[in-house]
Amino acid sequence: MEDLIVVKIGGNVIDQPLALETFLKDFAQIKAKKILVHGGGKIATEIGNKLGQQAIMVEGRRVTDKAMLETVTMVYGGLINKNIVAKLQAHGDNAIGLSGADGNSILCIKRPVKEVDYGFVGDVKDVNNAFLTHLLAGNLIPIMCPLSHDGNGSMLNINADTVATTLAKAMSKDFRTTLLYCFELKGVLSDFEDKTSVISEITLDTYNELKARGVISKGMIPKLDNSFDAIRNGVEKVVILHSEDVRLAAEGHQIGTTLS
Amino acid sequence: MEDLIVVKIGGNVIDQPLALETFLKDFAQIKAKKILVHGGGKIATEIGNKLGQQAIMVEGRRVTDKAMLETVTMVYGGLINKNIVAKLQAHGDNAIGLSGADGNSILCIKRPVKEVDYGFVGDVKDVNNAFLTHLLAGNLIPIMCPLSHDGNGSMLNINADTVATTLAKAMSKDFRTTLLYCFELKGVLSDFEDKTSVISEITLDTYNELKARGVISKGMIPKLDNSFDAIRNGVEKVVILHSEDVRLAAEGHQIGTTLS
Repeated sequence: MEDLIVVKIGGNVIDQPLALETFLKDFAQIKAKKILVHGGGKIATEIGNKLGQQAIMVEGRRVTDKAMLETVTMVYGGLINKNIVAKLQAHGDNAIGLSGADGNSILCIKRPVKEVDYGFVGDVKDVNNAFLTHLLAGNLIPIMCPLSHDGNGSMLNINADTVATTLAKAMSKDFRTTLLYCFELKGVLSDFEDKTSVISEITLDTYNELKARGVISKGMIPKLDNSFDAIRNGVEKVVILHSEDVRLAAEGHQIGTTLS
Repeated sequence: MEDLIVVKIGGNVIDQPLALETFLKDFAQIKAKKILVHGGGKIATEIGNKLGQQAIMVEGRRVTDKAMLETVTMVYGGLINKNIVAKLQAHGDNAIGLSGADGNSILCIKRPVKEVDYGFVGDVKDVNNAFLTHLLAGNLIPIMCPLSHDGNGSMLNINADTVATTLAKAMSKDFRTTLLYCFELKGVLSDFEDKTSVISEITLDTYNELKARGVISKGMIPKLDNSFDAIRNGVEKVVILHSEDVRLAAEGHQIGTTLS
């Protein structure tokens, strides 16, 4: 099977033009087949505020009402996605920007209302492997924004980490797939105060132990749960790393936190 | 050669949700290979105003400054494009939204500053036929917004009519190409006060005569110039028609104004 590298770049990097520029230059140097998934960053909230929209939070989580859906469709699908595509084109990558609606790449269902109505938020139902494989076969580089659709004509907001994991799992049927979670830290830290205290490897056993000892912080748990789920479902390797190390990790160097 | 239908849908239709919905339902019923090019409509101006941007006009033409470029990238590339894609997906069309940056489908150069500096506006330099043909071969339906890039990392604003004509000309090397310009009138009118006075055929000879007699209005001249340019450059047929007649025209019925 051919190699495929799925890279997730977090919102904190998206928000910093210089860090993003460096990341994209490095990403463009990765020779293997690749897919980039980008987060949203703070720009949507800023633009939503300017448009007079108020962020609606329920139990600490954002609710996507109709107005916010329009804003994220503009900002994630337009502003951020197209600017990343244009920059990668300048670096010689034949990038193509996509939401889950484009090519029906990711079909979602609107999250059912239980205790909380999250509004226009999607849960993944299906990934269109054949479509993504067709693009990769044409030497195109899919750039996925965290948006999808419900198959009934509405866009939906989705979580970028979920997009990355879902795509990696689905594509691992046809490719030897590595998932690289890039963010603003060097990896999973054993001491959050010490940014160099990177845990170089975590297995499912040590993960449970680290969780029990409270070493792994709250925000990191969904990311790691997703990662182990990916490994259980065919993904070869998951690495959590700093965005500036993406090229080294893609070339197989031991860097960041490797999950296995 | 296989048939290809390039459809341009104007901004006035984009601005009317019901007219757009009807158009998309009809467009989805076209069986031939097809590409949709959409205009921008008034939404970008409205959102620009809400964001505190002022439309800058020079000699009656809009100037795209940095802030307006961000707004049109959001609105054309995100809001309008993705919502059209989601709606066509609901009608069973495997639509894929594109700007000229995506897949390097249309490479532009920033318009040189002469008497007027139009800002971030592009003139078409090259069309990536191979990319579009690859998408069409995968039964995908490209949905083009009026945005492109300069190959150096910047997006550019481009005219949707120009996108449609340029694509039709370029694709006519590989496909028997028809260009359908859909808007809110039944065709080119001999009497602007009488919306039923459609001129059913215009040749280059009768065009010059109609222009000389002042029958063809100012706004229509660039559209018709573009159309005759397309015919001279390999496009089989150009029809100017009402958006509600798109399916009939695509099926070869004599409708609207046919240029030859």
